[in-house]
Amino acid sequence: MRSTLLDSISSPADIKKLDVHSLELLAQEIRKSIISIVEDNGGHLGANLGVVELTLALHSVLSTPRDKIIWDVGHQCYTHKLITGRKDRFHTLRQWQGISGFPVPSESEHDHFGVGHSSTSISAAAGMAVARDLNGENHKIVAVIGDGALTGGMAFEALCHIGSLGKDLMVILNDNEMSITKNVGALSDYLGRIRSDSTLYRARADLSTFLRKIPLLGKPLAQAAHKCKLALKNMLPGQLFEDLGFAYLGPFDGHNIARLQRAIKSGLERSGPVLLHVYTQKGKGHALAEEDPRRYHGVSPLRVVDPSKKKVQSYSQVFGNTLTALAEENKKIVAITAAMPDGTGLSGFAKRFPDRFFDVGIAEQHALTLAGGMAKEGLRPVVAIYSTFLQRGYDQIIHDLALQKLPVVIGVDRAGIVGDDGPTHHGVFDISFLRVIPNMTILAPRTGNELSAMLAWALDQSGPVAIRYPRGGASLEQLQPVFDPKRPISAAVVKTGRDAVVFAVGPMVEIALEAAHRLEPEFSCGVVNVRSLKPLDESELKRLAGGRKYLLTLEDHVLAGGFGSSILELFQEEPDLKIESLGYPDTFIPQGSISRLHEEYGLSVDHVEATIRKALSGRPLKAVARKDL
Amino acid sequence: MRSTLLDSISSPADIKKLDVHSLELLAQEIRKSIISIVEDNGGHLGANLGVVELTLALHSVLSTPRDKIIWDVGHQCYTHKLITGRKDRFHTLRQWQGISGFPVPSESEHDHFGVGHSSTSISAAAGMAVARDLNGENHKIVAVIGDGALTGGMAFEALCHIGSLGKDLMVILNDNEMSITKNVGALSDYLGRIRSDSTLYRARADLSTFLRKIPLLGKPLAQAAHKCKLALKNMLPGQLFEDLGFAYLGPFDGHNIARLQRAIKSGLERSGPVLLHVYTQKGKGHALAEEDPRRYHGVSPLRVVDPSKKKVQSYSQVFGNTLTALAEENKKIVAITAAMPDGTGLSGFAKRFPDRFFDVGIAEQHALTLAGGMAKEGLRPVVAIYSTFLQRGYDQIIHDLALQKLPVVIGVDRAGIVGDDGPTHHGVFDISFLRVIPNMTILAPRTGNELSAMLAWALDQSGPVAIRYPRGGASLEQLQPVFDPKRPISAAVVKTGRDAVVFAVGPMVEIALEAAHRLEPEFSCGVVNVRSLKPLDESELKRLAGGRKYLLTLEDHVLAGGFGSSILELFQEEPDLKIESLGYPDTFIPQGSISRLHEEYGLSVDHVEATIRKALSGRPLKAVARKDL
Repeated sequence: MRSTLLDSISSPADIKKLDVHSLELLAQEIRKSIISIVEDNGGHLGANLGVVELTLALHSVLSTPRDKIIWDVGHQCYTHKLITGRKDRFHTLRQWQGISGFPVPSESEHDHFGVGHSSTSISAAAGMAVARDLNGENHKIVAVIGDGALTGGMAFEALCHIGSLGKDLMVILNDNEMSITKNVGALSDYLGRIRSDSTLYRARADLSTFLRKIPLLGKPLAQAAHKCKLALKNMLPGQLFEDLGFAYLGPFDGHNIARLQRAIKSGLERSGPVLLHVYTQKGKGHALAEEDPRRYHGVSPLRVVDPSKKKVQSYSQVFGNTLTALAEENKKIVAITAAMPDGTGLSGFAKRFPDRFFDVGIAEQHALTLAGGMAKEGLRPVVAIYSTFLQRGYDQIIHDLALQKLPVVIGVDRAGIVGDDGPTHHGVFDISFLRVIPNMTILAPRTGNELSAMLAWALDQSGPVAIRYPRGGASLEQLQPVFDPKRPISAAVVKTGRDAVVFAVGPMVEIALEAAHRLEPEFSCGVVNVRSLKPLDESELKRLAGGRKYLLTLEDHVLAGGFGSSILELFQEEPDLKIESLGYPDTFIPQGSISRLHEEYGLSVDHVEATIRKALSGRPLKAVARKDL
Repeated sequence: MRSTLLDSISSPADIKKLDVHSLELLAQEIRKSIISIVEDNGGHLGANLGVVELTLALHSVLSTPRDKIIWDVGHQCYTHKLITGRKDRFHTLRQWQGISGFPVPSESEHDHFGVGHSSTSISAAAGMAVARDLNGENHKIVAVIGDGALTGGMAFEALCHIGSLGKDLMVILNDNEMSITKNVGALSDYLGRIRSDSTLYRARADLSTFLRKIPLLGKPLAQAAHKCKLALKNMLPGQLFEDLGFAYLGPFDGHNIARLQRAIKSGLERSGPVLLHVYTQKGKGHALAEEDPRRYHGVSPLRVVDPSKKKVQSYSQVFGNTLTALAEENKKIVAITAAMPDGTGLSGFAKRFPDRFFDVGIAEQHALTLAGGMAKEGLRPVVAIYSTFLQRGYDQIIHDLALQKLPVVIGVDRAGIVGDDGPTHHGVFDISFLRVIPNMTILAPRTGNELSAMLAWALDQSGPVAIRYPRGGASLEQLQPVFDPKRPISAAVVKTGRDAVVFAVGPMVEIALEAAHRLEPEFSCGVVNVRSLKPLDESELKRLAGGRKYLLTLEDHVLAGGFGSSILELFQEEPDLKIESLGYPDTFIPQGSISRLHEEYGLSVDHVEATIRKALSGRPLKAVARKDL
């Protein structure tokens, strides 16, 4: 495929040279580029296809990097990256050492703020607007935020602040009626009414005409007419944003470049905060993605789909399926998601129990405290949230669940390294930030079957339980264990061994096991599936380490304050035991495939084997048992 | 003072027997009780005096515990506690083992949800409403939230969700134009307009009269009139809440019991979510508190104020004063607070540099990312937030500051035990949850002078720096150290010692020092002021521990994943060193004076001395070196 126009674009300055017709042609070329690269590398298809025209219109009016564009969430940045000098590296999208699927300031001066999580753009833009004015500069600042991301509480906090500060700043509301799935909540309903109320808004014109006739009817009526004019102001669409201090412009067709250019220019000419409302279609230009935007939100590389291969259930699916089965028996079970019904495997539950399923939108804080309120009144709520997004609800876990010892089950999905999405999305902090909380129970299953058993157990506990499980396929080959709800979950010996023992967390058990097998018969190394990270099965773990020369801890998590650290605390008074810990170092882990990252950071079978071998050979241990990075 | 009416109230049922006049008399008695107990014990004066009538009106209409009232933040619960069976214990308010200053479910069946942090009530109430309907019950649920708390993003998340769910639930907006200080932001501006627009809203009546005359003018005008009627709907006050799916009622005088009773009853008769807007006056009935509600928000016990005693500057004041002084020299310095300009010592800065000071309202998430945007554009933002509220902005620290290595200084105020406010407010998790974050620097000053020097140093760094300092008075007696901005902050030897060494964090240094002095000459124990918790001054700490038999870590923080844990990680490969750690156990710490809590939890000088003595006497160490609790 030859992209003659796109070939000519090496910086946003080149965009400005194109007329509207050429921009429209360029948009089509860009769509093809995006579809092609996403087929190869995977990525966020729908969102990117939806903002091609908007991105071109923005860059044709603004002059980045002087002017600033903050892309909320950022996974819609592909057009932006293609036209800001990165088209030659675009084939490395989301790959190890390639370009990121999100804006990253270190990658380009046109990426003004790092994003990945939702609802941050208005806050960041507000900060930049304050800085601009204090620095005596006068560039333009635009935050582009989806209607889904706008449901996040911090976006509202930012709207309220900037609306009151009155700084020059444009927020573009990219309204596609979607976050990842169909958008929910009263704000979404409100935006829907703006769509449907266009007739009402048109009535303003008629009314104005009518009111102009009033004066001839005498003074009392003229006064009434004046009041009526005041009322008319409230007939504008977007009054809610006006009430928060923004000038509302729109709604506009987000695929009409000429219209967008005029709207953006006119918005930028105004002083004070402006909200520009545009309608876009997710997946625009890709028949399948237009039809099923939910499925085509994020897609896997086409090449890895091998139809002959047996489809493996993901941990998320196992979680959702088990929960649905348990909910058949227990009417008190309800499920909550923060805009991730598919990603967290809960769409089946939603279908089966629509009255017991709650999608709160991108609102992790509310999701957790809502669950607290439910639990307080006797329901058994289960909240499934990705590890990285759980950071958004941290205070709610402490203050609303753990302190009150409310029996809420938290499914900590995508715990550990997530791969191509990179550092904004890796779930490698949760053990540390959760284990510091009193009253919390934290579990990590080794297999899908163990996840099912843990979920059943968790639903019988009287306090909060977090279960962390990784992204990807879950083994269902082993028998499902049964855990006694009246007792804590015990550690399980997976392999016995004389010389050393590995305490491994969740999916790390398989890696430890393979390493231990390779070491036989030279070294006899036991492997323990820890299962309960908090409380630790203290007596059993102490018994299993007893008489060993060497204990290795293995976790898909940072070392600082993590599982290994909790083992050091446990064995604090047993100075004769050598303990080494493998996990991630004190750095943000970049993007790359999970296996590649495990290898790079010393969590591969090879590295675990070498680490144990070195320790048991009596050679001195290295200060940090991973590759120097 | 004899409280004849109050004496007769042993449960809310007794409230229902009283007519409005008696309730008004009761309100006056309750005010006296509250003022008297706050003079003795300290507490939240203004907020409680503001809701006396509202609380009586609510309890006269509702029947708790069947019906539920969720008090947002909860520090306005004194009237509620006095009339729900706790008046005899009211004198123990906020004291060790006394009744809490916040609603606590374990204290009374009339306290339906634990609160302390802001903006959680609507989420909790929403969860309870879902549970009620699924359980087939039909009681009433009311969340009472202040206009300040409503600025928190999670309250907006909850409004959007419940507005869309359409559950029967009443939100009472207790509008006193205040959070702790004067409320800020666009939502506050909006509420202010409701106040001032009453003339406009009265115009509705005139317009209706006018429109009724229209039909005689012919059909086209009749159509226009119809449209005008639709427009009138938008002239209602509180349209913003209507847009979010709530029926808006109000505004009402929050001190008129009869009016409140009628309004509450009428709201409860409606189906779906209702927002009832009431105006109250903070400090009502207390001349000084009415006049200066900011000063009388939270007050200290009268008895402890000794005018002859030299006033000690608090750490917050030192922080604010130093920042103001530094900002004179460095024009890039800006300061941000989340509704705590006084509490965080920033009101002087706000006065001196109004254009460089930002109070964002109760919006910690936005505060931190706003700072990120400012830092990205070259400003030097300083955000001061209490440790316990910093939990609200956890993801923003990770995702918006640390990942992007943005130079934002976070003043972690009230770190450690805070005393009478109890478990919702203790700041004992921050070392753990912050040290897991890559790129973070975490400091803890021993004195006010050290805090000043650390703040100056932090403002010269190229990444995020958190400085944690305790509630209370700061010593300014020692010379202010000067830290080289080009080097990490080093650990400081406070006392040398042959046999053992104590690594102490911040205010724990004085305790360690006194214990070490007491142990002389029997045992020679060194004391180190760690100063930098992350990165640790590794080589120096290793050198200082070298050749010692015993190392004790001492922190005003939980042990799980805390400072002691980081020392275990550091010394992981030096098994010959005995390390013991003192800090809080894995439980929520109750309310009580700071000194009392230090004693109870083994952080007093006596206990530290005994712990070291026991270790150095060669007697075996106890498993956990603190009192069994």
